[in-house]
Amino acid sequence: MEHKPAVGVIGIGQMGMGVAMTLLRKGFPVRVRDLRREAEDEARAAGATTCATPAELARGCAVIITLVVNAEQTDSVMFGADGALAGLARGGVVMMSSTVAPSYAQGLALRLGERGVLLLDAPVSGGPARAHAGTMSMMLAGEAAAMDQCRPVLEAIADKRFHIGERAGDGSKAKIVNNMLAGVNLAAACEAMALAIKLGLDPRAIAEVVSASSGASWMFSDRMPRVLAGDYAPRAALEILTKDLSILLDAARELNFPANIAQAAHQAYVDAVALGHGAEDDAALIKLYQTLAGIELPQR
Amino acid sequence: MEHKPAVGVIGIGQMGMGVAMTLLRKGFPVRVRDLRREAEDEARAAGATTCATPAELARGCAVIITLVVNAEQTDSVMFGADGALAGLARGGVVMMSSTVAPSYAQGLALRLGERGVLLLDAPVSGGPARAHAGTMSMMLAGEAAAMDQCRPVLEAIADKRFHIGERAGDGSKAKIVNNMLAGVNLAAACEAMALAIKLGLDPRAIAEVVSASSGASWMFSDRMPRVLAGDYAPRAALEILTKDLSILLDAARELNFPANIAQAAHQAYVDAVALGHGAEDDAALIKLYQTLAGIELPQR
Repeated sequence: MEHKPAVGVIGIGQMGMGVAMTLLRKGFPVRVRDLRREAEDEARAAGATTCATPAELARGCAVIITLVVNAEQTDSVMFGADGALAGLARGGVVMMSSTVAPSYAQGLALRLGERGVLLLDAPVSGGPARAHAGTMSMMLAGEAAAMDQCRPVLEAIADKRFHIGERAGDGSKAKIVNNMLAGVNLAAACEAMALAIKLGLDPRAIAEVVSASSGASWMFSDRMPRVLAGDYAPRAALEILTKDLSILLDAARELNFPANIAQAAHQAYVDAVALGHGAEDDAALIKLYQTLAGIELPQR
Repeated sequence: MEHKPAVGVIGIGQMGMGVAMTLLRKGFPVRVRDLRREAEDEARAAGATTCATPAELARGCAVIITLVVNAEQTDSVMFGADGALAGLARGGVVMMSSTVAPSYAQGLALRLGERGVLLLDAPVSGGPARAHAGTMSMMLAGEAAAMDQCRPVLEAIADKRFHIGERAGDGSKAKIVNNMLAGVNLAAACEAMALAIKLGLDPRAIAEVVSASSGASWMFSDRMPRVLAGDYAPRAALEILTKDLSILLDAARELNFPANIAQAAHQAYVDAVALGHGAEDDAALIKLYQTLAGIELPQR
């Protein structure tokens, strides 16, 4: 039987919990750590080992996946008091799967390298349902040794694995480029749907036309049914794409790259957050246009 | 055998020629009119009847499809000297399939109505290949009588027929809303792909990631292979989406609707036209970013 190495999962929010459950289901010993007691309880009930600190978690495994919220939390669970680096043996690998600035991922690879630890820059895509099913997409960048060591874990949790390159940071770059498109396409979808309503068209007819025509996008097809249903319960909070677009714009500015369309879309997200919609589903971006243009949105 | 009424096609460019050929193939008598002699010769060789003027064309049929470039040409072939209205009998129908401002379509319905002629506001989508195959999409708005009279023709030329409503203008509204999304999604695709190249990523890897992820759009999947192949031979000229976005922005302005993202995208198209790329394929929008950001694009 194939040896299944113990895997540590730090950050068991929606995505991390999905990964932990998938690994348990496929026979991997799983060690978890989260600040939220109820998340740890849920993982323990499913067979995971909970750990008092990231350091303790790291003492029991050679591969750690971090799925915390952002770069700040990644830094804290790695380098803080009782951080994972205090427990991880030389030769271990950190799969960093949060969405962060590419420059952060590059720097992290150097800082881990000084301690003999490898970084796999490994952002994920696909949402909680696919994390639970083991069918996420992953954008992978890192040295061959890191890839090799993570291979059985990657094959267990992701069915689309894009190998972007050898340089840490390139996975994060691919992720923010994809998310820039997701963010702009959703903002355009909301602007177009709101304008259609303002023009007096039936939003259901427009959704049907666009989905079958050249204006189609993954975000339009995924999010506009929520608008038609008046359902803004957060599956992905609006503030997440807001953050992703701001990471993208920071990277563009460093390169003097003119990202005007991303900038216009980002402004729409910022405005929607300012109006109080940041914790709603990102389809609630259309409420910005509701406020500005006085349209009536479909009700739940 | 079902009666196949004679159909007039005014404007046999790429789309109009496709429609004429489809109708001929399906057994409709077809009368054509175009200012370009070689287009008329091609249609005649395939069995169409060529006509010296729009009025002469109209004398032989009760259903006319106009597929000229814009509102100005539509006005000229309808109301100009020897225009179609001089020949069209009362009760005839004009299927206006060019992309025009919704307000133009609304006004046209009234002007035709004064002469006892019905308007079907019937913009098309799908490109020349689908026009030739008889599998276009059409967005249809008009009175039931106009729809009824056009039904056999519509069923012959379009396999996706979206009935938007009874009011002329609503078809054109649906069309410009779809094309706004096509225009923004393509501009975002070019901006994202150019930024990916500036970030040092492999454009082929990015195309693969995005196509399988949340950033996917119809325009990305259709146009980015042209960028990867360095192939900017015009299938749809860049100036067309430029015009479509400006029609959309005019309609938005009339309603005081804040179409900021469409505005940002439109500016990118205007800039690309200013740089001399208007007659190239619309995928050449990425050359704007090449010029501004100094990136190297894939070569043919």
